Amino acid sequence: MLEKLRKTVWEANVALPKNGLVLWTSGNASGRDPETGLVVIKPSGVLFDQLTSENLVVVDLQGNVVEGELKPSVDTASHLYVYRHRDDVHGMVHTHSPYATSFAIRGEPLRIYTTTSAAVFGGDIPVSDFATIGEEEIGREIVEKIGRNSAILLRSHGVFTLGKDVLTALKVAVILEETAQVVHFALLRGPVDPLPAEVVAAGYRVYHTNYGQKDRS
Amino acid sequence: MLEKLRKTVWEANVALPKNGLVLWTSGNASGRDPETGLVVIKPSGVLFDQLTSENLVVVDLQGNVVEGELKPSVDTASHLYVYRHRDDVHGMVHTHSPYATSFAIRGEPLRIYTTTSAAVFGGDIPVSDFATIGEEEIGREIVEKIGRNSAILLRSHGVFTLGKDVLTALKVAVILEETAQVVHFALLRGPVDPLPAEVVAAGYRVYHTNYGQKDRS
Amino acid sequence: MLEKLRKTVWEANVALPKNGLVLWTSGNASGRDPETGLVVIKPSGVLFDQLTSENLVVVDLQGNVVEGELKPSVDTASHLYVYRHRDDVHGMVHTHSPYATSFAIRGEPLRIYTTTSAAVFGGDIPVSDFATIGEEEIGREIVEKIGRNSAILLRSHGVFTLGKDVLTALKVAVILEETAQVVHFALLRGPVDPLPAEVVAAGYRVYHTNYGQKDRS
Amino acid sequence: MLEKLRKTVWEANVALPKNGLVLWTSGNASGRDPETGLVVIKPSGVLFDQLTSENLVVVDLQGNVVEGELKPSVDTASHLYVYRHRDDVHGMVHTHSPYATSFAIRGEPLRIYTTTSAAVFGGDIPVSDFATIGEEEIGREIVEKIGRNSAILLRSHGVFTLGKDVLTALKVAVILEETAQVVHFALLRGPVDPLPAEVVAAGYRVYHTNYGQKDRS
Repeated sequence: MLEKLRKTVWEANVALPKNGLVLWTSGNASGRDPETGLVVIKPSGVLFDQLTSENLVVVDLQGNVVEGELKPSVDTASHLYVYRHRDDVHGMVHTHSPYATSFAIRGEPLRIYTTTSAAVFGGDIPVSDFATIGEEEIGREIVEKIGRNSAILLRSHGVFTLGKDVLTALKVAVILEETAQVVHFALLRGPVDPLPAEVVAAGYRVYHTNYGQKDRS
Repeated sequence: MLEKLRKTVWEANVALPKNGLVLWTSGNASGRDPETGLVVIKPSGVLFDQLTSENLVVVDLQGNVVEGELKPSVDTASHLYVYRHRDDVHGMVHTHSPYATSFAIRGEPLRIYTTTSAAVFGGDIPVSDFATIGEEEIGREIVEKIGRNSAILLRSHGVFTLGKDVLTALKVAVILEETAQVVHFALLRGPVDPLPAEVVAAGYRVYHTNYGQKDRS
Repeated sequence: MLEKLRKTVWEANVALPKNGLVLWTSGNASGRDPETGLVVIKPSGVLFDQLTSENLVVVDLQGNVVEGELKPSVDTASHLYVYRHRDDVHGMVHTHSPYATSFAIRGEPLRIYTTTSAAVFGGDIPVSDFATIGEEEIGREIVEKIGRNSAILLRSHGVFTLGKDVLTALKVAVILEETAQVVHFALLRGPVDPLPAEVVAAGYRVYHTNYGQKDRS
Repeated sequence: MLEKLRKTVWEANVALPKNGLVLWTSGNASGRDPETGLVVIKPSGVLFDQLTSENLVVVDLQGNVVEGELKPSVDTASHLYVYRHRDDVHGMVHTHSPYATSFAIRGEPLRIYTTTSAAVFGGDIPVSDFATIGEEEIGREIVEKIGRNSAILLRSHGVFTLGKDVLTALKVAVILEETAQVVHFALLRGPVDPLPAEVVAAGYRVYHTNYGQKDRS
């Protein structure tokens, strides 16, 4: 069932440790099948090198396990809340990537200082209020606070990124951590102004029209 | 003798450099067999890529070598002191992982700023007093100061983590370093309050009941 | 067409992620063939592990695609502008390497504090004014501001390095990031004076006459 | 000629990038044969993954090439100066490892804050005066300033470590960088006192009598 989606979600999950975004079993990626609405997600507490496309869990939008022997991620209810409230989102990634999480600890939005982050995010990455793990509370915070951005910092926790598919959400998660790292380095040496809003908007526009090959994200 | 335990202890030892927790020959992991009480531990001063499950050393709780050609770790007496005083502990990991050790140098407990560290540790990670390497002194400090936590910072030295088995102690060591890293990043940009005690307690409770698959740590 | 140059440009491109200089699809390397004047460059938005020497794009100095199925990098116009204005340059590398980019965010030239950076750069690495991605504007900034250096920081963006061939430009990009890292570490602990200009000049002279094998860069 | 020494010196050289101590072609390791007095050293400007035990260069203590097609390292004269003045030294490593080099830039000795660095170094790691690359000047600074330590910071340049053989010098170089890293992290969060001299001396004594297997360094 959903073999192609399983494969892509597996690829996104194993890319998380390879890109330095997660350690041990933390973090997860999920994808929603546009036709059936079913969601493929990482099982809870499984090491990334023990993941296969077969042991991922398939759930429906209400959280019922449709296929899979393992219990789905403890973050499943939050993924599903976002999918139910955002028709445009078909992939999500959650990490505790360290530079981004340092902003989440401090409750500081990640502002836009570089052409790369202007292009990808188009505006400051917001911070949610503190939310408890395990139910929909994180999902509600995401839907309420993320606005038109594709990334959000979860207060005192980590990050969530959204995409039209799971590999897009993965790309956003990679660039979010790179952005947080470079901004952290720059701010440690003294205060500096973010880019003006019109420069950010222009960079976002160019990237979303001119960059990449026609059939790629 | 103790083939299965040897294999797990070997896995935990070689996971230390792979997870960036140790360099060269420093650091070690040990496991205690619940039936015989015998302990499998890294030999002293051997590079991790020269370890095999066969060249690990088996000692009894008094430190007599029961099996093995090599001299056991210089930290053996401290591992054994902890095992003798903590019936619930069957695995231990010792590292000099750099972010955690920077707190140990400063004599600063590692406080809880994230949901992940709340879940895993349930409270501030304490710092021991300075203790000399080579005898039981480190073991005594651990038993006296660690309380209900599973990790402790050794003053001016490094970290020790305890678990119901060696892979649990390894997991705690990985998450301890990740926690120290993210807190270091956050504190460099200015002071910030740790999570309230009741939030830490609730996060710990949820993680120890809901997370992971039934038969996993 | 240009098989040898394709291979070298491919090597330089895949060396970028291997040396920690780029993430995902960002950054690119190009090389100019001294005989035909044609330029081989990375296609836009392609992951580095999907690059082959065959899917690189060949363009002429006016930006017409001469060979290749994919769209060339969005930075192509800037590469070409530099090639047209600098006869001595036959290789270029563009990255967002994090330590160097933190100087670009702050608009701070990277000054010379080490014998290595004296040897390679021979003087402070300048910062361009802010330039928009996608047309020649970055290329014009490079030509105008780089002077006799082989590296330049692009304001709020990243870095460009130039060389007599693409592997020389790659070497400069690697050493630029290493230099930015070590200077960042040193400056975080307090102010410190750069090396005197005559020491920098002497180090540059020695390196460009005595270092390496005769037939190597 | 000197096949066993060639192999060990090759191992030490390729361990430099693997341990994050060098980039590109910088840094080098050498070893002296106790019987003939001949020295095996890295050729100048060769990438580490192109090194073989066969393309290392053999020189005598006056710097004459005895075997080898390539030009020896630009640091050869300094290695040889040290070998001629220190009968106990048969291995040397030179790196620009970033954390240690940040202390060299600042002209700050690396003080002893941890049991590991007490054990290995036995005292503060000194900083040389500025010395020019290419002749014996660095070697003279090393011999004059290193005292009884096995490591020295070269002002505005990098580090040199000495050992009874090249693998011992390598070990010291690895632990030097780890030490510089952890001390850098600790100092960034505020001032802290180094360990008392008598604690450092005791740690050094224990390590040099009790640690490791009898026939190992």
